[in-house]
Amino acid sequence: MALGKNYEGQECSLARALELVGERWTLLVVRDALYGVRRYGDFLTHLDIPRAVLSQRLQTLVEAGLLDKRRYQDSPPRDEYVLTERGLDLWPAVYVLAKWGERHAGGPGPQRTFHHAACDAPLDRFSACTACGRHPAPQEVEVRPGSALTFERDDPVSLAMRAPHRLLTPLP
Amino acid sequence: MALGKNYEGQECSLARALELVGERWTLLVVRDALYGVRRYGDFLTHLDIPRAVLSQRLQTLVEAGLLDKRRYQDSPPRDEYVLTERGLDLWPAVYVLAKWGERHAGGPGPQRTFHHAACDAPLDRFSACTACGRHPAPQEVEVRPGSALTFERDDPVSLAMRAPHRLLTPLP
Repeated sequence: MALGKNYEGQECSLARALELVGERWTLLVVRDALYGVRRYGDFLTHLDIPRAVLSQRLQTLVEAGLLDKRRYQDSPPRDEYVLTERGLDLWPAVYVLAKWGERHAGGPGPQRTFHHAACDAPLDRFSACTACGRHPAPQEVEVRPGSALTFERDDPVSLAMRAPHRLLTPLP
Repeated sequence: MALGKNYEGQECSLARALELVGERWTLLVVRDALYGVRRYGDFLTHLDIPRAVLSQRLQTLVEAGLLDKRRYQDSPPRDEYVLTERGLDLWPAVYVLAKWGERHAGGPGPQRTFHHAACDAPLDRFSACTACGRHPAPQEVEVRPGSALTFERDDPVSLAMRAPHRLLTPLP
């Protein structure tokens, strides 16, 4: 179906947000970057998507200023992708949407839980700490395996995330 | 590009949420339903999308249990679409993503502002009332024209929303 990428005439900040992050897989790439994934091969095995799709999504996110592409090795050339301030600011939206999915889109329970590290307390469904009431930045949040995590996947990122992990700390 | 609809192997509630609402236009249909749009023709003119796409999105949302389809007239038969509890629960995710769009995806300022009606106070970027601190349900929220609203659109929904409007109150 021929659908324009721009939601023309939609004078709405949601429409503008969806122009940037409303394409399939885009928010899952952002989620992985929040977890701490930085390298092409790690996105590839953890997301399990075709190379062409991943390359396109990464390029879109770089062009939109959500990811910063950094050369970390010269020979052979290798880049890593790190969230910008604009990308980091998506954390509450990604989190709130994921919590909705946990409540409503099936599944036996939380696969992962999110905690304010300083308080050692879980976040509520709006991303506030249930102890101090603040909304911690992602680097202050620890993700832990939840009761419904199946441990079936054995790519390097999934393996590393079987243990508690501070968001944005490089994975795996 | 041949992309599966299921994010297979993604043991993540965000992936499950995106299976339901990650298709183009779907969240904009939910947004309009939160505003109070209920009828096919009003979605059509306000969203300005092809009929086939709208019909498919509405059907998807009904099948996913986010919208309830109700016959409101028998001759000729006419249906309206009303958010279920599961659909209403998307309000914080839609709001938080829209606020991100307002901050980062361009635009001169807010096209619409959202207020806790009982307190007459704006919501913060996490959907909490800046006066009482609660997260009001959508029916307690008033949407008002913002400083950047251009008043260019003249479909019935856009016209009705030039005035302050309580979410979920039928539009136009």
